[in-house]
Amino acid sequence: MSPGRYLAVEGTEGVGKTTLNRLLTDRLNERGVEVVRVREPGGTPLGEQIRSLLLHGDDMADWTEALLFAAQRSELVTRVIRPALSQGKWVLSDRCFYSSLAYQGYARGLGVSRVWSVNAPALGGTLPDLVVWLETDHGAALLRQEQPDRIGSEDASVHLQVWKGYRSVWTTDRERTLRMDGGRSPQHSVAVLVSVLEERGWLGPC
Amino acid sequence: MSPGRYLAVEGTEGVGKTTLNRLLTDRLNERGVEVVRVREPGGTPLGEQIRSLLLHGDDMADWTEALLFAAQRSELVTRVIRPALSQGKWVLSDRCFYSSLAYQGYARGLGVSRVWSVNAPALGGTLPDLVVWLETDHGAALLRQEQPDRIGSEDASVHLQVWKGYRSVWTTDRERTLRMDGGRSPQHSVAVLVSVLEERGWLGPC
Repeated sequence: MSPGRYLAVEGTEGVGKTTLNRLLTDRLNERGVEVVRVREPGGTPLGEQIRSLLLHGDDMADWTEALLFAAQRSELVTRVIRPALSQGKWVLSDRCFYSSLAYQGYARGLGVSRVWSVNAPALGGTLPDLVVWLETDHGAALLRQEQPDRIGSEDASVHLQVWKGYRSVWTTDRERTLRMDGGRSPQHSVAVLVSVLEERGWLGPC
Repeated sequence: MSPGRYLAVEGTEGVGKTTLNRLLTDRLNERGVEVVRVREPGGTPLGEQIRSLLLHGDDMADWTEALLFAAQRSELVTRVIRPALSQGKWVLSDRCFYSSLAYQGYARGLGVSRVWSVNAPALGGTLPDLVVWLETDHGAALLRQEQPDRIGSEDASVHLQVWKGYRSVWTTDRERTLRMDGGRSPQHSVAVLVSVLEERGWLGPC
Protein backbone atom coordinates (compact mmCIF):
# COMPACT_ATOMS: atom_id res chain seq x y z
CA MET A 1 0.00 0.00 0.00
CA SER A 2 1.42 3.39 -0.99
CA PRO A 3 1.41 5.87 1.85
CA GLY A 4 -1.41 8.34 2.29
CA ARG A 5 -0.60 12.02 1.98
CA TYR A 6 -2.05 14.97 3.83
CA LEU A 7 -2.28 18.17 1.79
CA ALA A 8 -3.80 21.43 2.93
CA VAL A 9 -4.59 24.56 0.95
CA GLU A 10 -4.25 27.86 2.76
CA GLY A 11 -4.89 31.48 1.98
CA THR A 12 -7.13 34.41 2.79
CA GLU A 13 -10.90 34.35 2.31
CA GLY A 14 -12.09 33.75 -1.24
CA VAL A 15 -8.73 32.98 -2.78
CA GLY A 16 -9.90 29.67 -4.28
CA LYS A 17 -8.91 26.99 -1.77
CA THR A 18 -12.04 24.89 -2.19
CA THR A 19 -11.91 25.05 -5.98
CA LEU A 20 -8.29 23.95 -6.06
CA ASN A 21 -9.01 21.03 -3.75
CA ARG A 22 -12.00 19.98 -5.85
CA LEU A 23 -9.95 20.01 -9.04
CA LEU A 24 -7.09 18.18 -7.36
CA THR A 25 -9.49 15.55 -6.08
CA ASP A 26 -10.62 14.90 -9.65
CA ARG A 27 -7.04 14.60 -10.87
CA LEU A 28 -6.14 12.22 -8.06
CA ASN A 29 -9.23 10.11 -8.54
CA GLU A 30 -8.35 9.74 -12.24
CA ARG A 31 -5.13 8.09 -11.08
CA GLY A 32 -6.93 5.76 -8.71
CA VAL A 33 -5.99 7.64 -5.55
CA GLU A 34 -8.69 7.58 -2.92
CA VAL A 35 -9.25 11.05 -1.49
CA VAL A 36 -10.91 12.25 1.70
CA ARG A 37 -11.79 15.93 1.62
CA VAL A 38 -12.14 17.90 4.82
CA ARG A 39 -12.41 21.50 5.85
CA GLU A 40 -11.45 23.53 8.87
CA PRO A 41 -13.04 24.45 11.07
CA GLY A 42 -15.29 21.41 10.89
CA GLY A 43 -15.09 18.06 9.16
CA THR A 44 -16.55 16.04 12.05
CA PRO A 45 -19.99 16.26 13.69
CA LEU A 46 -18.51 17.92 16.77
CA GLY A 47 -16.18 20.04 14.66
CA GLU A 48 -19.11 21.39 12.66
CA GLN A 49 -20.80 22.41 15.92
CA ILE A 50 -17.62 24.20 16.93
CA ARG A 51 -17.47 25.77 13.47
CA SER A 52 -20.92 27.21 14.04
CA LEU A 53 -19.79 28.77 17.32
CA LEU A 54 -16.69 30.20 15.65
CA LEU A 55 -18.16 31.62 12.47
CA HIS A 56 -21.71 32.56 13.39
CA GLY A 57 -21.61 33.06 17.17
CA ASP A 58 -21.09 36.19 19.20
CA ASP A 59 -17.71 37.80 19.69
CA MET A 60 -15.40 35.81 21.88
CA ALA A 61 -12.08 36.32 23.61
CA ASP A 62 -9.06 35.82 21.36
CA TRP A 63 -7.77 32.80 23.25
CA THR A 64 -11.24 31.26 23.34
CA GLU A 65 -11.21 31.42 19.56
CA ALA A 66 -7.70 29.98 19.28
CA LEU A 67 -8.55 27.10 21.63
CA LEU A 68 -11.80 26.30 19.82
CA PHE A 69 -9.89 26.10 16.55
CA ALA A 70 -7.41 23.75 18.19
CA ALA A 71 -10.23 21.64 19.65
CA GLN A 72 -11.96 21.07 16.30
CA ARG A 73 -8.54 20.28 14.82
CA SER A 74 -7.88 17.62 17.45
CA GLU A 75 -11.19 15.99 16.63
CA LEU A 76 -10.60 16.15 12.87
CA VAL A 77 -7.09 14.73 13.07
CA THR A 78 -8.07 11.95 15.47
CA ARG A 79 -11.35 10.90 13.89
CA VAL A 80 -10.77 11.48 10.18
CA ILE A 81 -7.29 12.42 9.01
CA ARG A 82 -5.14 9.90 10.88
CA PRO A 83 -7.47 6.95 10.13
CA ALA A 84 -7.62 7.91 6.44
CA LEU A 85 -3.83 8.19 6.16
CA SER A 86 -3.41 4.83 7.86
CA GLN A 87 -5.57 3.32 5.11
CA GLY A 88 -3.37 4.82 2.41
CA LYS A 89 -5.87 7.49 1.44
CA TRP A 90 -5.00 11.06 0.65
CA VAL A 91 -6.49 13.86 2.70
CA LEU A 92 -7.12 17.23 1.07
CA SER A 93 -8.02 19.94 3.49
CA ASP A 94 -9.30 23.47 3.19
CA ARG A 95 -7.06 25.07 5.81
CA CYS A 96 -4.93 23.55 8.57
CA PHE A 97 -3.04 24.79 11.65
CA TYR A 98 -1.36 27.43 9.46
CA SER A 99 -4.63 29.35 9.60
CA SER A 100 -4.42 29.52 13.38
CA LEU A 101 -0.80 30.65 13.25
CA ALA A 102 -1.61 33.34 10.68
CA TYR A 103 -4.97 34.56 12.01
CA GLN A 104 -4.79 34.12 15.78
CA GLY A 105 -1.04 33.95 16.21
CA TYR A 106 0.06 36.76 13.93
CA ALA A 107 -2.90 38.94 12.96
CA ARG A 108 -4.54 38.96 16.39
CA GLY A 109 -1.19 39.19 18.11
CA LEU A 110 -1.43 36.11 20.35
CA GLY A 111 2.00 35.02 19.14
CA VAL A 112 2.76 32.38 16.53
CA SER A 113 4.74 30.16 18.91
CA ARG A 114 2.13 30.37 21.68
CA VAL A 115 -0.65 29.44 19.27
CA TRP A 116 1.49 26.62 17.97
CA SER A 117 1.91 25.36 21.56
CA VAL A 118 -1.86 24.78 21.94
CA ASN A 119 -2.06 23.18 18.50
CA ALA A 120 0.82 20.76 18.89
CA PRO A 121 -1.08 18.44 21.28
CA ALA A 122 -4.17 18.67 19.05
CA LEU A 123 -2.17 17.41 16.07
CA GLY A 124 -0.19 14.76 17.90
CA GLY A 125 2.47 14.77 15.18
CA THR A 126 0.04 14.50 12.26
CA LEU A 127 1.04 17.55 10.23
CA PRO A 128 0.35 18.13 6.54
CA ASP A 129 2.96 16.72 4.19
CA LEU A 130 2.43 19.79 2.06
CA VAL A 131 0.68 23.12 2.61
CA VAL A 132 -0.18 25.06 -0.53
CA TRP A 133 -0.28 28.75 0.26
CA LEU A 134 -2.42 30.39 -2.39
CA GLU A 135 -1.05 33.88 -2.26
CA THR A 136 -2.90 36.70 -3.87
CA ASP A 137 -3.75 40.34 -3.61
CA HIS A 138 -5.86 40.32 -0.49
CA GLY A 139 -8.23 43.03 -1.72
CA ALA A 140 -9.16 41.15 -4.87
CA ALA A 141 -9.61 37.99 -2.84
CA LEU A 142 -11.99 39.78 -0.49
CA LEU A 143 -14.12 40.88 -3.41
CA ARG A 144 -14.44 37.29 -4.58
CA GLN A 145 -15.78 36.23 -1.18
CA GLU A 146 -19.55 36.18 -1.67
CA GLN A 147 -20.84 35.24 1.76
CA PRO A 148 -18.64 36.76 4.40
CA ASP A 149 -18.99 35.22 7.85
CA ARG A 150 -17.94 36.72 11.19
CA ILE A 151 -14.26 36.29 10.48
CA GLY A 152 -14.50 36.96 6.77
CA SER A 153 -16.22 40.29 7.28
CA GLU A 154 -13.48 41.79 9.36
CA ASP A 155 -11.86 44.74 7.75
CA ALA A 156 -9.18 44.66 5.14
CA SER A 157 -6.38 45.75 7.43
CA VAL A 158 -6.84 42.54 9.43
CA HIS A 159 -6.51 40.57 6.21
CA LEU A 160 -3.31 42.34 5.41
CA GLN A 161 -2.09 41.20 8.82
CA VAL A 162 -3.22 37.66 7.97
CA TRP A 163 -1.26 37.79 4.74
CA LYS A 164 1.78 38.87 6.73
CA GLY A 165 1.07 36.01 9.10
CA TYR A 166 1.11 33.48 6.26
CA ARG A 167 4.33 34.97 4.99
CA SER A 168 5.81 34.67 8.46
CA VAL A 169 4.82 31.00 8.74
CA TRP A 170 5.99 30.27 5.20
CA THR A 171 9.36 31.87 5.98
CA THR A 172 9.97 29.49 8.89
CA ASP A 173 8.46 26.35 7.34
CA ARG A 174 9.51 26.44 3.68
CA GLU A 175 10.11 22.71 3.47
CA ARG A 176 6.44 22.06 4.05
CA THR A 177 5.02 25.06 2.20
CA LEU A 178 4.43 25.56 -1.51
CA ARG A 179 3.76 29.21 -2.28
CA MET A 180 1.58 29.56 -5.36
CA ASP A 181 0.14 32.49 -7.24
CA GLY A 182 -3.54 32.59 -6.30
CA GLY A 183 -4.20 35.03 -9.13
CA ARG A 184 -3.79 32.33 -11.80
CA SER A 185 -6.65 30.13 -12.97
CA PRO A 186 -7.51 27.09 -10.86
CA GLN A 187 -6.76 24.90 -13.89
CA HIS A 188 -3.26 26.33 -14.06
CA SER A 189 -2.76 25.93 -10.33
CA VAL A 190 -3.84 22.30 -10.25
CA ALA A 191 -1.55 21.47 -13.18
CA VAL A 192 1.40 23.01 -11.35
CA LEU A 193 0.47 21.21 -8.16
CA VAL A 194 0.18 17.82 -9.86
CA SER A 195 3.59 18.27 -11.41
CA VAL A 196 5.05 19.08 -8.00
CA LEU A 197 3.51 15.92 -6.56
CA GLU A 198 4.99 13.92 -9.42
CA GLU A 199 8.42 15.47 -8.91
CA ARG A 200 8.30 14.48 -5.26
CA GLY A 201 7.51 10.92 -6.25
CA TRP A 202 4.21 10.98 -4.44
CA LEU A 203 2.30 10.22 -7.63
CA GLY A 204 3.22 7.69 -10.23
CA PRO A 205 3.17 8.71 -13.90
CA CYS A 206 -0.26 9.01 -15.52
CA MET B 1 -11.47 49.31 47.56
CA SER B 2 -10.39 46.00 49.07
CA PRO B 3 -9.11 43.56 46.50
CA GLY B 4 -11.36 40.94 44.99
CA ARG B 5 -10.55 37.30 45.63
CA TYR B 6 -10.94 34.30 43.38
CA LEU B 7 -11.77 31.07 45.21
CA ALA B 8 -12.51 27.73 43.56
CA VAL B 9 -13.85 24.55 45.11
CA GLU B 10 -12.62 21.31 43.64
CA GLY B 11 -13.31 17.63 44.15
CA THR B 12 -14.85 14.59 42.51
CA GLU B 13 -18.50 14.44 41.44
CA GLY B 14 -21.05 14.92 44.20
CA VAL B 15 -18.63 15.86 46.95
CA GLY B 16 -20.51 19.06 47.82
CA LYS B 17 -18.74 21.82 45.90
CA THR B 18 -21.90 23.73 45.01
CA THR B 19 -23.30 23.54 48.54
CA LEU B 20 -20.09 24.83 50.05
CA ASN B 21 -19.98 27.74 47.60
CA ARG B 22 -23.63 28.56 48.33
CA LEU B 23 -23.03 28.63 52.07
CA LEU B 24 -19.84 30.65 51.66
CA THR B 25 -21.69 33.15 49.48
CA ASP B 26 -24.19 33.69 52.32
CA ARG B 27 -21.44 34.18 54.85
CA LEU B 28 -19.61 36.64 52.60
CA ASN B 29 -22.78 38.56 51.80
CA GLU B 30 -23.47 38.93 55.54
CA ARG B 31 -20.17 40.77 55.73
CA GLY B 32 -20.98 43.02 52.81
CA VAL B 33 -18.75 41.23 50.34
CA GLU B 34 -20.17 41.18 46.83
CA VAL B 35 -19.89 37.70 45.33
CA VAL B 36 -20.04 36.47 41.75
CA ARG B 37 -20.66 32.74 41.52
CA VAL B 38 -19.58 30.79 38.46
CA ARG B 39 -19.20 27.20 37.44
CA GLU B 40 -17.00 25.28 35.09
CA PRO B 41 -17.53 24.29 32.46
CA GLY B 42 -19.82 27.19 31.70
CA GLY B 43 -20.53 30.53 33.31
CA THR B 44 -20.82 32.49 30.05
CA PRO B 45 -23.30 32.09 27.19
CA LEU B 46 -20.62 30.56 24.97
CA GLY B 47 -19.22 28.56 27.88
CA GLU B 48 -22.63 27.00 28.53
CA GLN B 49 -22.80 25.93 24.88
CA ILE B 50 -19.37 24.34 25.24
CA ARG B 51 -20.55 22.74 28.50
CA SER B 52 -23.37 21.11 26.62
CA LEU B 53 -20.93 19.66 24.08
CA LEU B 54 -18.67 18.40 26.88
CA LEU B 55 -21.22 16.86 29.21
CA HIS B 56 -24.03 15.72 26.95
CA GLY B 57 -22.41 15.27 23.57
CA ASP B 58 -20.94 12.21 21.94
CA ASP B 59 -17.56 10.81 22.84
CA MET B 60 -14.68 12.95 21.75
CA ALA B 61 -10.92 12.65 21.50
CA ASP B 62 -9.09 13.30 24.76
CA TRP B 63 -7.33 16.42 23.51
CA THR B 64 -10.54 17.75 22.02
CA GLU B 65 -12.02 17.55 25.50
CA ALA B 66 -9.02 19.19 27.15
CA LEU B 67 -9.02 22.03 24.61
CA LEU B 68 -12.76 22.63 24.96
CA PHE B 69 -12.35 22.89 28.73
CA ALA B 70 -9.55 25.41 28.18
CA ALA B 71 -11.67 27.36 25.68
CA GLN B 72 -14.63 27.78 28.06
CA ARG B 73 -12.14 28.76 30.77
CA SER B 74 -10.64 31.48 28.59
CA GLU B 75 -14.09 32.92 28.00
CA LEU B 76 -15.05 32.74 31.69
CA VAL B 77 -11.84 34.37 32.90
CA THR B 78 -11.94 37.11 30.28
CA ARG B 79 -15.63 37.95 30.38
CA VAL B 80 -16.55 37.35 34.03
CA ILE B 81 -13.77 36.60 36.50
CA ARG B 82 -11.22 39.27 35.62
CA PRO B 83 -13.83 42.08 35.35
CA ALA B 84 -15.39 41.05 38.69
CA LEU B 85 -12.03 41.01 40.46
CA SER B 86 -11.15 44.41 39.03
CA GLN B 87 -14.33 45.73 40.69
CA GLY B 88 -13.32 44.32 44.06
CA LYS B 89 -15.85 41.50 43.95
CA TRP B 90 -15.14 37.97 45.07
CA VAL B 91 -15.51 35.13 42.61
CA LEU B 92 -16.54 31.72 43.91
CA SER B 93 -16.23 28.98 41.33
CA ASP B 94 -17.33 25.39 41.15
CA ARG B 95 -14.12 23.96 39.67
CA CYS B 96 -11.17 25.64 37.97
CA PHE B 97 -8.13 24.56 35.94
CA TYR B 98 -7.32 21.99 38.64
CA SER B 99 -10.14 19.88 37.21
CA SER B 100 -8.42 19.77 33.85
CA LEU B 101 -5.09 18.84 35.43
CA ALA B 102 -6.72 16.08 37.48
CA TYR B 103 -9.19 14.70 34.93
CA GLN B 104 -7.52 15.18 31.55
CA GLY B 105 -3.92 15.58 32.67
CA TYR B 106 -3.69 12.82 35.21
CA ALA B 107 -6.68 10.46 34.93
CA ARG B 108 -6.79 10.38 31.13
CA GLY B 109 -3.02 10.36 30.92
CA LEU B 110 -2.50 13.44 28.73
CA GLY B 111 0.09 14.71 31.20
CA VAL B 112 -0.41 17.35 33.88
CA SER B 113 2.21 19.71 32.49
CA ARG B 114 0.96 19.39 28.91
CA VAL B 115 -2.61 20.12 29.97
CA TRP B 116 -1.33 23.07 31.98
CA SER B 117 0.41 24.38 28.85
CA VAL B 118 -2.90 24.74 26.99
CA ASN B 119 -4.58 26.29 30.05
CA ALA B 120 -1.93 28.89 30.80
CA PRO B 121 -2.83 31.11 27.83
CA ALA B 122 -6.53 30.67 28.63
CA LEU B 123 -5.98 32.01 32.15
CA GLY B 124 -3.58 34.80 31.24
CA GLY B 125 -2.25 34.89 34.79
CA THR B 126 -5.67 35.00 36.49
CA LEU B 127 -5.38 31.99 38.79
CA PRO B 128 -7.47 31.32 41.89
CA ASP B 129 -6.11 32.86 45.08
CA LEU B 130 -7.28 29.72 46.85
CA VAL B 131 -8.45 26.32 45.69
CA VAL B 132 -10.38 24.28 48.23
CA TRP B 133 -9.94 20.60 47.52
CA LEU B 134 -12.88 18.80 49.08
CA GLU B 135 -11.37 15.41 49.55
CA THR B 136 -13.54 12.45 50.34
CA ASP B 137 -13.97 8.78 49.81
CA HIS B 138 -14.67 8.74 46.09
CA GLY B 139 -17.17 5.90 46.30
CA ALA B 140 -19.39 7.67 48.81
CA ALA B 141 -19.23 10.82 46.73
CA LEU B 142 -20.34 8.91 43.65
CA LEU B 143 -23.39 7.62 45.52
CA ARG B 144 -24.40 11.18 46.38
CA GLN B 145 -24.31 12.18 42.71
CA GLU B 146 -27.95 12.05 41.62
CA GLN B 147 -27.78 12.96 37.95
CA PRO B 148 -24.63 11.60 36.42
CA ASP B 149 -23.64 13.17 33.14
CA ARG B 150 -21.26 11.80 30.54
CA ILE B 151 -18.19 12.42 32.63
CA GLY B 152 -19.87 11.71 35.97
CA SER B 153 -21.05 8.28 34.84
CA GLU B 154 -17.61 6.99 34.05
CA ASP B 155 -16.60 4.08 36.16
CA ALA B 156 -15.24 4.29 39.66
CA SER B 157 -11.69 3.39 38.69
CA VAL B 158 -11.51 6.58 36.66
CA HIS B 159 -12.60 8.52 39.72
CA LEU B 160 -9.87 6.93 41.76
CA GLN B 161 -7.46 8.19 39.09
CA VAL B 162 -9.03 11.64 39.38
CA TRP B 163 -8.53 11.57 43.13
CA LYS B 164 -4.90 10.70 42.54
CA GLY B 165 -4.76 13.54 40.04
CA TYR B 166 -6.00 16.03 42.63
CA ARG B 167 -3.49 14.70 45.11
CA SER B 168 -0.75 15.14 42.50
CA VAL B 169 -1.75 18.75 41.81
CA TRP B 170 -2.13 19.49 45.51
CA THR B 171 1.34 18.12 46.15
CA THR B 172 2.92 20.56 43.72
CA ASP B 173 0.75 23.60 44.50
CA ARG B 174 0.23 23.52 48.27
CA GLU B 175 0.49 27.28 48.67
CA ARG B 176 -2.68 27.70 46.66
CA THR B 177 -4.54 24.62 47.81
CA LEU B 178 -6.55 24.04 50.98
CA ARG B 179 -7.25 20.35 51.45
CA MET B 180 -10.46 19.82 53.42
CA ASP B 181 -12.36 16.78 54.59
CA GLY B 182 -15.35 16.48 52.28
CA GLY B 183 -16.93 13.98 54.62
CA ARG B 184 -17.79 16.65 57.20
CA SER B 185 -21.03 18.65 57.10
CA PRO B 186 -21.12 21.68 54.78
CA GLN B 187 -21.79 23.86 57.85
CA HIS B 188 -18.58 22.62 59.42
CA SER B 189 -16.64 23.12 56.19
CA VAL B 190 -17.80 26.68 55.66
CA ALA B 191 -16.93 27.60 59.25
CA VAL B 192 -13.40 26.25 58.77
CA LEU B 193 -13.08 28.03 55.45
CA VAL B 194 -14.23 31.39 56.83
CA SER B 195 -11.72 31.11 59.66
CA VAL B 196 -8.96 30.43 57.12
CA LEU B 197 -9.97 33.52 55.15
CA GLU B 198 -9.88 35.58 58.35
CA GLU B 199 -6.45 34.22 59.27
CA ARG B 200 -5.15 35.25 55.86
CA GLY B 201 -6.47 38.76 56.42
CA TRP B 202 -8.78 38.52 53.41
CA LEU B 203 -11.86 39.12 55.58
CA GLY B 204 -12.20 41.68 58.33
CA PRO B 205 -13.69 40.56 61.67
CA CYS B 206 -17.45 40.07 61.79
